[in-house]
Amino acid sequence: MTNKKEIIAGIIIIGNEVLSGRTKDINTSTISTWLNSIGIEVREVRVIPDVEKTIIDTVNQLRKKFNYIFTTGGIGPTHDDITAESISKAFNIEYGFHKDAYSILEKYYKPGEFTEGRQKMAKMPTTAKLITNPSSGAPGFYVENVFCLPGVPSILKSMLGGLNNVLVGGDPVLSKTLNLRTVESEIAKSLTDVQNKNKDVEIGSYPFFRAGKLGVSIVLRSTDQKKIDECNDQILQFIKNKNIEILREI
Amino acid sequence: MTNKKEIIAGIIIIGNEVLSGRTKDINTSTISTWLNSIGIEVREVRVIPDVEKTIIDTVNQLRKKFNYIFTTGGIGPTHDDITAESISKAFNIEYGFHKDAYSILEKYYKPGEFTEGRQKMAKMPTTAKLITNPSSGAPGFYVENVFCLPGVPSILKSMLGGLNNVLVGGDPVLSKTLNLRTVESEIAKSLTDVQNKNKDVEIGSYPFFRAGKLGVSIVLRSTDQKKIDECNDQILQFIKNKNIEILREI
Repeated sequence: MTNKKEIIAGIIIIGNEVLSGRTKDINTSTISTWLNSIGIEVREVRVIPDVEKTIIDTVNQLRKKFNYIFTTGGIGPTHDDITAESISKAFNIEYGFHKDAYSILEKYYKPGEFTEGRQKMAKMPTTAKLITNPSSGAPGFYVENVFCLPGVPSILKSMLGGLNNVLVGGDPVLSKTLNLRTVESEIAKSLTDVQNKNKDVEIGSYPFFRAGKLGVSIVLRSTDQKKIDECNDQILQFIKNKNIEILREI
Repeated sequence: MTNKKEIIAGIIIIGNEVLSGRTKDINTSTISTWLNSIGIEVREVRVIPDVEKTIIDTVNQLRKKFNYIFTTGGIGPTHDDITAESISKAFNIEYGFHKDAYSILEKYYKPGEFTEGRQKMAKMPTTAKLITNPSSGAPGFYVENVFCLPGVPSILKSMLGGLNNVLVGGDPVLSKTLNLRTVESEIAKSLTDVQNKNKDVEIGSYPFFRAGKLGVSIVLRSTDQKKIDECNDQILQFIKNKNIEILREI
């Protein structure tokens, strides 16, 4: 489903806490949902450890592959926050105090409270552009097409809106979901037929098991609402023939 | 922190539903936590779309880099389930009915209900080894060091135990978490000092924001309990000096 206005992105989740299983990543879902709404499709996510070489290599590999890259995590004040320095090295830009970031943080804290630890949050690639942080002062930043956001989900979420005018999106991807009381093997053949007749709609089939009952979510995705509707009608037809119940909530 | 018994793994989450933001991945956390318990460390996670070439390339790249690879998703009966065929191509093994898988599924369904759609779940690399599925019949499979599991979290979880005797683990990674009522910048310097004195313990610092209050989780990880305890004592010391509250629950 390539079209002229296809804009694609990658996400790099930086953090040992996700790799160890301790923390479940929800930032991917937040970023992807927001990007979808402005017509940008996420094609790959990588979760990597807080290791400088890995961060540099991953950023340099993916920034050539996608229109936009988003990193999360590692821009705080502690010893394990090494994203800002790694991005500087990836782009070969001096790492040091960012004038505007320093000034924002200096104003944010009370006199005498802008300690050495806090000052570290103003260190980044010195020529980076800032991403406003309405939650806690410390800004994110971006260099070329690489946008660096914090790992704390609520803070990250509050910063995305500020980027709406910075990113150039494509045609928004629209979607429709049908939740059915059935199992995938009951509908697999009919769904394949519908997919073959509707090449411009991406049809996803996702089994679920909740409250002791099985079901399947059918998700239709396309940039063209009319094509989604046509595809939806064809699915409703075979669902009716098979006497399958449509669920309002799952 | 390389040691002789270091066994490392990668996870490949296959599914457009995670990339689109619709579904939050929780399988990484399940697999990582289980692997940790048997001494295997996850070093990278990739989330990729249901695209054959991407699956083949990612599997072939990562299986050389890690001792074990786990894939999730794409082994059901519908048209978008292409993991089994992609793995066959990655290993250049014939894709077709797996004798034992066919026999398991044939017994699982009532006579006449083992339809064409369901039979697809018995198609995989014909020489693969099976992973028992106690939840819903359809087995997972593995080829060399690549283990293919379903995407439904409850079913995936039920299948991991069956692999305990198949995988060779290293020294289990132990951990200790301290939840503090503080902010990272208050403790950054002291924590850096402790990290510098305890090179064999990985110290992670993770800010959180819950119920309107800020806090920080300090996570100590090592294969050596004694080293974790020493490190923990040093942290308790500076916490006491700074009058920082330790939280029982967050």
